[in-house]
Amino acid sequence: MSDMFHWHGGCLAQARDHYGADGAPWIDLSTGINPRPWPGAAHVTPDWQSLPDPAALADMETAAASHFGVAPAHVCALPGSEIGLRMLGKLLDRPGCHLVPSYRTHAAAFPGSLPLDAPEQAPPGTALLLANPNNPDGRLFAPAYMLALLARQERGDGWLIVDEAFADSVPGSSIAGEAGQGRRLILLRSFGKFFGLAGVRLGFLVGPPSIIAACRDMLGDWPLSAAAIDFGRAAYRDRHWINWTIADLRDRAVHLDRILSRHGLVPRGDCPLFRLVETPAAAALFDRLARHAILTRPFDHQPHWLRLGLPADDAAMARLDKALG
Amino acid sequence: MSDMFHWHGGCLAQARDHYGADGAPWIDLSTGINPRPWPGAAHVTPDWQSLPDPAALADMETAAASHFGVAPAHVCALPGSEIGLRMLGKLLDRPGCHLVPSYRTHAAAFPGSLPLDAPEQAPPGTALLLANPNNPDGRLFAPAYMLALLARQERGDGWLIVDEAFADSVPGSSIAGEAGQGRRLILLRSFGKFFGLAGVRLGFLVGPPSIIAACRDMLGDWPLSAAAIDFGRAAYRDRHWINWTIADLRDRAVHLDRILSRHGLVPRGDCPLFRLVETPAAAALFDRLARHAILTRPFDHQPHWLRLGLPADDAAMARLDKALG
Repeated sequence: MSDMFHWHGGCLAQARDHYGADGAPWIDLSTGINPRPWPGAAHVTPDWQSLPDPAALADMETAAASHFGVAPAHVCALPGSEIGLRMLGKLLDRPGCHLVPSYRTHAAAFPGSLPLDAPEQAPPGTALLLANPNNPDGRLFAPAYMLALLARQERGDGWLIVDEAFADSVPGSSIAGEAGQGRRLILLRSFGKFFGLAGVRLGFLVGPPSIIAACRDMLGDWPLSAAAIDFGRAAYRDRHWINWTIADLRDRAVHLDRILSRHGLVPRGDCPLFRLVETPAAAALFDRLARHAILTRPFDHQPHWLRLGLPADDAAMARLDKALG
Repeated sequence: MSDMFHWHGGCLAQARDHYGADGAPWIDLSTGINPRPWPGAAHVTPDWQSLPDPAALADMETAAASHFGVAPAHVCALPGSEIGLRMLGKLLDRPGCHLVPSYRTHAAAFPGSLPLDAPEQAPPGTALLLANPNNPDGRLFAPAYMLALLARQERGDGWLIVDEAFADSVPGSSIAGEAGQGRRLILLRSFGKFFGLAGVRLGFLVGPPSIIAACRDMLGDWPLSAAAIDFGRAAYRDRHWINWTIADLRDRAVHLDRILSRHGLVPRGDCPLFRLVETPAAAALFDRLARHAILTRPFDHQPHWLRLGLPADDAAMARLDKALG
């Protein structure tokens, strides 16, 4: 198994090279990106010629803010939430700590960031970074717990930063409504995962006005492509598709759980876009699935883990079922 | 005349609201963006679903580096050169100075940046930022002068930063070939201006390996949209269109100069994408042209200046000629 697959998901080209591409088309379950994207892409015809209109950007932020449940003044659009994570150390000049396991970039957000087994271990004065739902284990913290954590951080002169990249798929999990003036809370949101359009590069930072102003200052006047603005304006207002997708993801995650359980695997996590399984046979399982042209996500420091993204449809579910058996 | 027009160019929507949109279609001469864009847009069909492939990004940087005349290892792609300007103060933690007049963001790149009338005034140890060709006056510095300036900055423990956002349209003006290991030279390049596709948001930072590494670290793994990668890969390799456009811009700039001169205006600058005119009647001229549905670019601190972008074709030239007369 090449080291390449241990890095981020989405290395389908390398998998094809290694395992071949002669058989069935590859199924990519190596990411947490919704494989059934928002279908409006065909109707998005960006004006590539002009500099993006600031009013259009503001309108897109308004649509996103309404979806998040927060005032637009507390939202700054980003060319992907990844760059938002990279900006945190500059926005909050203080020691950081992060929950483990977590998304790889979390450890790099603050210089010398302290890894924690539990959020309550955050030392006073620190910026605590964690994801909800978490990646790769899909762990979900209840809003009441998150609010208690925010209160604890605020009491201790610290900050709470929540990476809500996967929150769209778990209604009620977000604490975006708490963000704003006087709060020491920063959230990151991602467009590409729930809407299945990671190539657009669109994300958001949610926080108090001083942080939003500093963020805008670091990005300049035209942070987003015309396409990102057009996609966001329309997709965040498509309540019908959003609601349908939340239900669809939930149903398909139940289906995936049933398949995994049938093959003696215990699915972990509460994010419907992926499941983590823990087994001593994880490496062999990765290899077996890859030989059936199904790419999953192993982890080099946790060789007993394998993360599986949600299959797109019944046919993909059936192929996974067969490959496991 | 609304203050809005004093800010960046491209405020066509506000101009329409203020002056009306009942007559001829508006001609936007308020920017320095090529109004004849690279025509390949129709053939670019980005994969919006997947995270952009790192190999595709590297290939696009290779195409751009070849166009710039520098090794790909010295090039980092950005979601627009504007964000590169905003990163400079973090990349080079030292006092800055900038040539005036210049592009607005230059003054904000370094905290407390010192404005200079001449590049030779840069104090020892500073990062000197200037554009070549410059904007808004189109002033062109010869490569020999730029190299002497670089040597002076390096001798004085300083850095030279050249915003080459408009350099594609002036062959031979770039000093990208000097960038690399051991040099205290950073360049910024822009895709949108010469290729006429500012909505794509694509730019580059060129510099020594340590700066490139720091830049990549600040941006993260997926700095660009799938569209920006696809556009860059194809457009920077379209030598035929690039060469044709360089000649076409030069010819049309001569045409524009003739029109301006005929109306008693003295065109300033050597960047074919725009001309600056200096006249006590600049405000009246802006107003007159706007009443003919032609938007130009005034400057609030230089009320005697007006910048005119290059008209797209003979029809637009004729309308400008008539509106001036």
